[in-house]
Amino acid sequence: MKLSKLVGERLKEVPNGAILKSHIYLIRAGYIKQVSTGIFSMLPPAQRVSEKIQNIIREEMNKIDGQEVLFPVVMPRELWEMSGRYNSIQEELLRFKDRSGHDMLLGMTHEEAAVHMAMNTIKSHEQLPCMIYQIQTKYRDEARPRGGLIRVREFLMKDAYSFHTSQEDLDNYYKKAYDAYNRIYKRIGLKNFISVRSDSGIMGGKVADEFMLVTDAGEDRLVLCDKCGYKANMEVAEGKKEENTLKEVQEIEEVFTGNAKTIEEVCHFLEIDPSNTVKAVCYVTEDDKLVVAFLRGDYDVNEKKLAKLAKSEIKVADTDKFNLVAGNIGCVNLEVPEDAMVFYDTSIMGLENFVTGANKEDYHIRNVSASRDLKDVTFNDIALVKEGDRCPVCGEKLRLTRGIEIGNIFQLGTKYTKSMGMKVSMPDGSMSEPIMGCYGIGIGRALASVVEEKADDKGIVWPMTIAPWHVHFCPLRLDDENVEAVAYELYKKMEDAGIEVLFDDRKVSAGVKLTDSELMGMPIRVVISPKTMANGVAEVTMRENGETNFIPLSDLLSELKIMIADEIEEIEK
Amino acid sequence: MKLSKLVGERLKEVPNGAILKSHIYLIRAGYIKQVSTGIFSMLPPAQRVSEKIQNIIREEMNKIDGQEVLFPVVMPRELWEMSGRYNSIQEELLRFKDRSGHDMLLGMTHEEAAVHMAMNTIKSHEQLPCMIYQIQTKYRDEARPRGGLIRVREFLMKDAYSFHTSQEDLDNYYKKAYDAYNRIYKRIGLKNFISVRSDSGIMGGKVADEFMLVTDAGEDRLVLCDKCGYKANMEVAEGKKEENTLKEVQEIEEVFTGNAKTIEEVCHFLEIDPSNTVKAVCYVTEDDKLVVAFLRGDYDVNEKKLAKLAKSEIKVADTDKFNLVAGNIGCVNLEVPEDAMVFYDTSIMGLENFVTGANKEDYHIRNVSASRDLKDVTFNDIALVKEGDRCPVCGEKLRLTRGIEIGNIFQLGTKYTKSMGMKVSMPDGSMSEPIMGCYGIGIGRALASVVEEKADDKGIVWPMTIAPWHVHFCPLRLDDENVEAVAYELYKKMEDAGIEVLFDDRKVSAGVKLTDSELMGMPIRVVISPKTMANGVAEVTMRENGETNFIPLSDLLSELKIMIADEIEEIEK
Repeated sequence: MKLSKLVGERLKEVPNGAILKSHIYLIRAGYIKQVSTGIFSMLPPAQRVSEKIQNIIREEMNKIDGQEVLFPVVMPRELWEMSGRYNSIQEELLRFKDRSGHDMLLGMTHEEAAVHMAMNTIKSHEQLPCMIYQIQTKYRDEARPRGGLIRVREFLMKDAYSFHTSQEDLDNYYKKAYDAYNRIYKRIGLKNFISVRSDSGIMGGKVADEFMLVTDAGEDRLVLCDKCGYKANMEVAEGKKEENTLKEVQEIEEVFTGNAKTIEEVCHFLEIDPSNTVKAVCYVTEDDKLVVAFLRGDYDVNEKKLAKLAKSEIKVADTDKFNLVAGNIGCVNLEVPEDAMVFYDTSIMGLENFVTGANKEDYHIRNVSASRDLKDVTFNDIALVKEGDRCPVCGEKLRLTRGIEIGNIFQLGTKYTKSMGMKVSMPDGSMSEPIMGCYGIGIGRALASVVEEKADDKGIVWPMTIAPWHVHFCPLRLDDENVEAVAYELYKKMEDAGIEVLFDDRKVSAGVKLTDSELMGMPIRVVISPKTMANGVAEVTMRENGETNFIPLSDLLSELKIMIADEIEEIEK
Repeated sequence: MKLSKLVGERLKEVPNGAILKSHIYLIRAGYIKQVSTGIFSMLPPAQRVSEKIQNIIREEMNKIDGQEVLFPVVMPRELWEMSGRYNSIQEELLRFKDRSGHDMLLGMTHEEAAVHMAMNTIKSHEQLPCMIYQIQTKYRDEARPRGGLIRVREFLMKDAYSFHTSQEDLDNYYKKAYDAYNRIYKRIGLKNFISVRSDSGIMGGKVADEFMLVTDAGEDRLVLCDKCGYKANMEVAEGKKEENTLKEVQEIEEVFTGNAKTIEEVCHFLEIDPSNTVKAVCYVTEDDKLVVAFLRGDYDVNEKKLAKLAKSEIKVADTDKFNLVAGNIGCVNLEVPEDAMVFYDTSIMGLENFVTGANKEDYHIRNVSASRDLKDVTFNDIALVKEGDRCPVCGEKLRLTRGIEIGNIFQLGTKYTKSMGMKVSMPDGSMSEPIMGCYGIGIGRALASVVEEKADDKGIVWPMTIAPWHVHFCPLRLDDENVEAVAYELYKKMEDAGIEVLFDDRKVSAGVKLTDSELMGMPIRVVISPKTMANGVAEVTMRENGETNFIPLSDLLSELKIMIADEIEEIEK
């Protein structure tokens, strides 16, 4: 490809509002162009990367017996009513009417379409297990698209759906899919990725794993143990809390705290540390029962854990409705309705002489003692892990970091086959709903994640396996007839040899050429100039580490082919 | 691929309402499944065909320097307002609001997105010509989807857009694209296709060619000359009309025709032939001017031709509004408003003693003479070609047939670059809007067209180049241990040798296996059975012509590889 003809331009300026490296460089280097909020066009180099990623994914899906299909982007309301999702999903599901007034929607995932395809075409246990997958455009009406290709509204996604006759069979297949995902990320050149067991959220079902690129730029909070490898999404992470120090128990006394309501205000007023307090956070369940959570003042509620204990979705309560004194709620002599639930976090275990609300305006009490005043209480872990907590497995200090979700796999159970009425005949002659798994990976986000992980301060650094071109060929001084002749000859030879080469055939300065090549990020840069030609060599530089070698022109083709093959092997091994 | 695990079922019944062969067989053979009106899922075998077609198209687009990109399915109103199409396109453009109330739409073509991508990234004539293309899902809110994949609402389409500095350059490129299209159809195995110069309709612009699969099942009417190769879409076709016989001119006389209004009724009443009459058809222009078209009674108006002469879109007029006597309008003494336009078809030239309306209720006049009564009139061709008309080039009788549009290419001119404000610097330093071409081909329709052309009464017949699998392997009597052992061994060997094979591993009757293989349409069927094995051979049958050979098992792999390669070469040569 000649750079002079390549559609796309290189920009010096950081695009407005762009913070993530991948967002900045993909726009600056001419890979993507925004068409609307969270909606992008892919320019030719990005499309090349995307196709290479798709092919790697296809190979891995086919290896685990996946059958590629294509579901529609536009689906009718009826299909999604069968599963109940037409009503249960909020505004991120884009609904519209077609010209005849029929309710339609834009697919954000395709569980319903997958079951629709499998229904009646898979009739017997003998046809199972089977997995179907597609690579198709999806639309999710995100409220806050951000970060270029990281959080978009329209995206290309590989989604796969498997069907099984037993949980055991699903477990086996799930493991295979898990391994395939790890191979995919490795093969597209990611290094710093992990998987975490996660809450499966909107998708229903039980076991789920999220694959995460570990990066400070991520939206998801992660809890890692660098010693034993424990890793979890903050939503489900457990941490061993520091044990509370034994103290001599003192008498409870009421203390005036006036307008001091938050833990911060109370601690400031009483000149104590939050770890010497117990705070309350109040929620209501779906059927409006009160849920009170008590935690040591330096911990925050993990709402997922709390919801699980309360066996209901929860939202923050209006304390007035329950006659509670907001800001002065305490764990001694709290009066709550009979059907209320009160939970105590494990951070309170063994805590002595602490401050908590007096359950009346303007007052707290001090010298409360867990061993004396909460002795019949059951403690549960309902807190978010915090800095300083220790690994629940090995006891090492946990590391809190962030990640970008780059894929996820779920055990769906029979949620969709049951609701949609799909059954297959079992070996014993009975009819039964197959158990499903589903497996998603966004192509654009995977592409952006590679940029996010590998880019340096000069631009993108592509791994050889998915680089748009293997070689960026920069002949300097193309106005020199000798350079020009050799350059065009070399370009032709590289192409003929099957080397994917981007040829900077512009008559521009060396500075512009080299800067552009670093910005665009091909793994190998080949420079020739009157000077290198005088020595009969080309200057060959690896984008990743800047390592430069001078290679005799006569060996260039064979050397490049070896370098490319070696690099791909190194990544995929 | 083992047939027992393949998602999809073979059906005996013709699906409800299906008429086209492709519709019937694609459903019956388990290739597609309807999700909503005009919206289908592609099952694994169809997806395999689709990908092969896509790859052939990619190769041909890359050969003419196409750069693959990806535009979004969902686009904002603003982009389509720039070109004016947001308002000019009727209900087939699906419009909706996103969650923030913003007007969005589903792309049915991507001229706007292409110019949006090229704007600012193509700045100089030096970057031209260039062509960008994508293969992406489109949605067109068709009022009447029909025929399976032939006329759908959602479809995968390759659309390409080229940019040029001069008409000459566009002409050159257009010719290349034209040739590429011919290669594509040839390579996917079509034989009976033609291209016709067409009216470019909704797309604007000037020159356009439609590629048509010639088939009685088509929606488009075609006019062909089997002698000289003249071919045209009915909308623009010209035909030499039979010359009217010279007759002695007689005196005009009024004749009572009462309620006889249509040509059929009048001819029946007067016992004359429609070719001895002249009828009127009335239209109005966009600015409500009357347009009257006179034609010999056995011809019909070609509205495209008439609109071109009237220099306006036209629609059928309300004759009352113009004080015309519907059913009695005639070409003598017709009173029309001053700004009305009256056109006379060439079929009237030299017509003597004919009947036409008397321009008053209940009466016609007869013995009207073109040479006497219409002597100052200009005759234009405003008629649809009809059976019996002759080739405008060589004079041979024309053949009227039908076709399915399988692709089209357009010269767009500067319609989009002008309206959207895209300019590039020209060699003389001036700024100018590039001239565009666009080139579309629907993947699903191409797939269905191949089925439509090649299917026989047993099912689908795939060309080797796009068949889902090359070989359908049917071991009969898999309950026989010897057959089973040899079958699985052969299957493995075929796969290892890179032969794409669908292995019917089911323990079902020979009848079911052979019927299914004919329905599904792989080019080569390989049968083994206790009987063939006793002779050490396999029975190898070509789906297309039923030709059967018995090939020694020891030679089977090498023979199959040769057959496959030969067949592909034969199609692509």
